[in-house]
Order: sequence, then structure tokens, then C-alpha cells
Amino acid sequence: MAGYHVPPLEELVEKFESLPGIGHKSAQRLAYHVLDMSQEDAESFAQAIVGAHEKIHTCKVCCNLTDGELCPVCRSDTRDKGTICVVEEPKDVFALERAGEYNGLYHVLHGAISPLSGVGPDQLRIKELLARMDASVEEVIMATNPTVEGEATAMYLSRLLKPLGVRVTRLAYGIPVGGDLEYADEVTLQRAMEGRQEL
Amino acid sequence: MAGYHVPPLEELVEKFESLPGIGHKSAQRLAYHVLDMSQEDAESFAQAIVGAHEKIHTCKVCCNLTDGELCPVCRSDTRDKGTICVVEEPKDVFALERAGEYNGLYHVLHGAISPLSGVGPDQLRIKELLARMDASVEEVIMATNPTVEGEATAMYLSRLLKPLGVRVTRLAYGIPVGGDLEYADEVTLQRAMEGRQEL
Repeated sequence: MAGYHVPPLEELVEKFESLPGIGHKSAQRLAYHVLDMSQEDAESFAQAIVGAHEKIHTCKVCCNLTDGELCPVCRSDTRDKGTICVVEEPKDVFALERAGEYNGLYHVLHGAISPLSGVGPDQLRIKELLARMDASVEEVIMATNPTVEGEATAMYLSRLLKPLGVRVTRLAYGIPVGGDLEYADEVTLQRAMEGRQEL
Repeated sequence: MAGYHVPPLEELVEKFESLPGIGHKSAQRLAYHVLDMSQEDAESFAQAIVGAHEKIHTCKVCCNLTDGELCPVCRSDTRDKGTICVVEEPKDVFALERAGEYNGLYHVLHGAISPLSGVGPDQLRIKELLARMDASVEEVIMATNPTVEGEATAMYLSRLLKPLGVRVTRLAYGIPVGGDLEYADEVTLQRAMEGRQEL
């Protein structure tokens, strides 16, 4: 006999296995865990999946994820409307908000320019960013990732935005706080040296 | 502002985080992946969770998971009804069936005796195993895990079953095939030495 088949279980294992970072063994363990849940918990899990999918869409101004028409940042009265921080993904907004340092608005590109993966400027929310460039915007901070794609995207946008008379800045590079100098790569150390500041 | 809140997304992240082996970062990544799915895929994922839960229950003979009244092994005409292999969990049956060596029946205990975790013989499917002990059963193979709990469970069942006149055996211990002698622990090596066989 070539294996023991329980189709609904196999289907659930397959679904978990299709998620990023989940291999076959983990998928099996997750599926068994779901079987051990109460009927109520399993239904509430399923509902959370469908519910998140139905209720969440992108903010019509900044393109971040939200369950309202505008996201909480664009809706807020206390945020500085003169600064827009451009990030690649919604999770970058969550990371910056956790840091708590920034009080301006955001713009989520939903990706970075990557010719190798076939992602050009047209696939990103750049049109939406340009539409926001009125007289009230004083500074656009490029907070794309410190990767080749993130850099290229920041350079591309900077060339589009500077002619509009807006100040374009980039997040500082340097050694990560709490990191160990010994483990920092050469490029990071070079950038940290270049960006050194007076004490 | 203390973080950016999108309740349906947070709920979904929480659900993933409650699964075994999934931390907060992984849960976030999985939730974003679900948002990137098509509406149809998200619904089919949710349906697989509820469906598996509704359709799968334990076989009324061997207590393994199945979507029928009897599991495929108990239903089969070609399996040897004289041998029962006792395992702790349904996934152990899948593992043994994958190995393809065994052609008898199974019995799934759904755990092992573990006084530390408060699991006694009454919480396991031992009553169901004893109910199967009629004249047709010649051998019961203990395939519980090679752990303290698995050993204790095998010993406990062996004492219950031997007086009924059935042959009780235990899976062989030894060095794992493809393993490296250097990395085998002392107890495994002792058992491998004790269980040595003529070539």
C-alpha cells in the first residue's frame, strides 16, 4: 500500500505547504494542530482568513493597507502633512510606526523597481505618489530597503521629484544599534564612516 | 502614535501566531501572504480548515484519523489482521505507511503515559485496544516513541496484553540508517551493541 490517504487532511497540509517558509513537515504539524482545535476555533480561524481578505484594501491616498477608506495615518489630524515617507511594503510602515520617531505621512509603493523580476515603475504606486505632490509637501523621505532594488527605486523617484521643487532625503546608513562592529559587512562600515557625525 | 492598527489584519496575525512553531514575524509574513492571495484562494484555504475539521474523525476500530467510518487500513482486505502495531499519534501511522514495510493493522493511542503532563492510561485509547484482543490477534508490536513516556507506555501495555496470551514485541533500537556513528548518543550505541545480529 502506497501511503495512507485522508483527502481532507492532505488538502489542508497542501494549503499550509503553499504558504511562504512552511515545509512539508511543518505543514503536517499545523494541520494536526487545526484538527486538535475546537470546532469553534477552527471556524474563527477560517473566518479571520476570509475576513481579512474581504475587509482590507489599500488606502486611496497613501496605498497602505487599511479597513477604512483612508488609513489611520492619512485620517489623523496630528500628523505632519508636509512630509511623506516612501516605503516599499505595508510592513515597513508598521516597523516605522513601532519605532515611533516619525510623525509625517507615508506612501507605500508595493514593491521596488527590479528589472530582473520584471518589475518596472509602472507596476508600483508611483502615479499615486506624484498625484500627492502639491504645494503642501515639503520633504519626501526615501525609506526603501538598503538593497540594489531599493536604491534604484530611491534614485528613480528622486529624479522625478526634485524637479517639482520638493526636498528629497534618504534614511541614514550605518551600523545597526546593538549590533557588533565585528559582524558588520564592509559596505555598511564604509557607509557608517562616510556618514560619521560630530560628537 | 502607538502603532498602526488594522484590526482584521491584527486578528489574522494573532491566529497564525497561535499555531505551533509560528512566531510573531512569521505570523505577519503569513498574514501578508494571505492578503496577496486571490479571493478564491483565500476562501478555499478557509474552507480546507473548516472542511478538515468537519470531515475528519477517528476510526472506530483503530482510532486513527479518517474521513470514513473505518480508516483505509481497517477497511482493507489485503492487510494481515493478526498483527496490530501500536503507535502514539496518527502521524506515526503515516510515517510507517511511507516506509511500506508493514502490512498489519494499527492502533493509535493519541498520546503516551506521562505523569508529569498529567496523562494517565485513562486518557489514552487503551480500552479500545483491549476490546480488539480476540483470538485472531497473534502479535502486538509496540511502536511508541523511544522516549521515557513511550517506553513506559509500551511496558504498561505489555503487562496488560501478555496475560491474554498474545505475543508482544517492540521495534528494534539501533543506529539510524544513513546516520554517522560519531554522532550517535551513548544510549543508542549501547542498544545497537546489545541488539547486534549475525551477518
